[in-house]
Amino acid sequence: MRKKNMALLLEYDGSRYDGWQRQGNTDNTIEGKLEKILERLTGACQQVHGSGRTDAGVHAAGQVANVCLDTDMSEGELRDYLNRYLPEDIKVLQVREVPERFHSRLWAKEKTYTYYIDMDEKSSVFARKYTYAVGKGLDVGAMEQAVGYLVGTHDFAGFCSNKKKKKSTVRTIKDIRFQVSKNCLSVSVTGDGFLYNMVRILVGTLIEIGLGKRTPDSVKEVLDCRDRQAAGFMAPARGLFLVSVVYETEIFPVEVEETVR
Amino acid sequence: MRKKNMALLLEYDGSRYDGWQRQGNTDNTIEGKLEKILERLTGACQQVHGSGRTDAGVHAAGQVANVCLDTDMSEGELRDYLNRYLPEDIKVLQVREVPERFHSRLWAKEKTYTYYIDMDEKSSVFARKYTYAVGKGLDVGAMEQAVGYLVGTHDFAGFCSNKKKKKSTVRTIKDIRFQVSKNCLSVSVTGDGFLYNMVRILVGTLIEIGLGKRTPDSVKEVLDCRDRQAAGFMAPARGLFLVSVVYETEIFPVEVEETVR
Repeated sequence: MRKKNMALLLEYDGSRYDGWQRQGNTDNTIEGKLEKILERLTGACQQVHGSGRTDAGVHAAGQVANVCLDTDMSEGELRDYLNRYLPEDIKVLQVREVPERFHSRLWAKEKTYTYYIDMDEKSSVFARKYTYAVGKGLDVGAMEQAVGYLVGTHDFAGFCSNKKKKKSTVRTIKDIRFQVSKNCLSVSVTGDGFLYNMVRILVGTLIEIGLGKRTPDSVKEVLDCRDRQAAGFMAPARGLFLVSVVYETEIFPVEVEETVR
Repeated sequence: MRKKNMALLLEYDGSRYDGWQRQGNTDNTIEGKLEKILERLTGACQQVHGSGRTDAGVHAAGQVANVCLDTDMSEGELRDYLNRYLPEDIKVLQVREVPERFHSRLWAKEKTYTYYIDMDEKSSVFARKYTYAVGKGLDVGAMEQAVGYLVGTHDFAGFCSNKKKKKSTVRTIKDIRFQVSKNCLSVSVTGDGFLYNMVRILVGTLIEIGLGKRTPDSVKEVLDCRDRQAAGFMAPARGLFLVSVVYETEIFPVEVEETVR
């Protein structure tokens, strides 16, 4: 047996979890579920590092984590072992052995979150757990105007729930894209990192712009005054997905469709 | 007020229902939910006619039903009223007033069901309630060979759960299509009508062919001997969707994306 640093590509339905991070008062977290299984496997406490802490109720289609294990298992064996014991709403998509120093959070260059908004009066029955039902049409053009102020390197303190701001609240948003399909609007935000609740507050503010409750240039004022009160509401967790995490070198190759013989 | 024959285009997540049809021992049916709301609206018992009876646990993306009502409500008002009182897993997509003699089942020319199969070892966490997890790769080529025997007008008695076969068991399958996306295989069956459990037994038999448990030409024997025992297993309800019902003239126009201002 030798120490292996294993990177995990994960998807999970966050609906019934208290978020990613293991906490004192609950072990109902994604991290907690993974660590418990790895502890049983290795007989020792394991620290799983996630690329970021998704909030309670937030989903992931491409979360990345890593863990250092003394194990003889291959990448595929570890994936299958974890999937066998994980509940049906958490799935390991891929496992790859990575350099010893790799850390899923510290090495992350870029992350993309996508937020799904249902604009119909009643939500689609199949997507209802994964969308926020705003219940009316949004002015996507106005929302797009606000993007001009948000993209770039700014102090996003006004778009953060955390009141203690000792650490830097400067982040770079590389891109914000909108996509409309039938009555569903998705907002994808790509950046080098995000503050606590930042994506949900950004999306909530954009929704208020789309509803005509505030102007597109009001986001500039939020950036300038750095005051959370000046920003919009925090969009509910259910519509948010961590879609992808990008590193200097690609860790997970695009899977070949190998299951069809 | 005047009598209006209203056609409803519906989607529902069948997971927690005892199927479409109202039954003596349960009112936990889609039909039952609709009739209860319409009874409250009109003060009289209402008979909702569905295009077909989906089984317990089967979903619909395009079920069609009709009901004759004494009402002043417009099409849009009736849709909104029903959606307000229906649970979140049943949704009225559109309402159209149709000719007095229109009957959603008797006038149906063609129906399409789609069955979703997840071939990965562990199901996708987001689609898991709407797919059957076969857990391994299927030989889609072999499944496609069987299609040649099934498409056309045949006696499908061997693909029917109902033991009393007084009525004709001859049906016409117009098309069977396969689509592979990542590890998900969908099977779409279009026909002029289907016997009790017919699509699920057809799909179960195709899955056994895809697993190599039976040969593609074995379906010819099932058609010839008319014996349910000769066919494959009945695929679980959770993977099945009633996708569309086609009539001589189109009832529901394709919706214009009007919610984006």
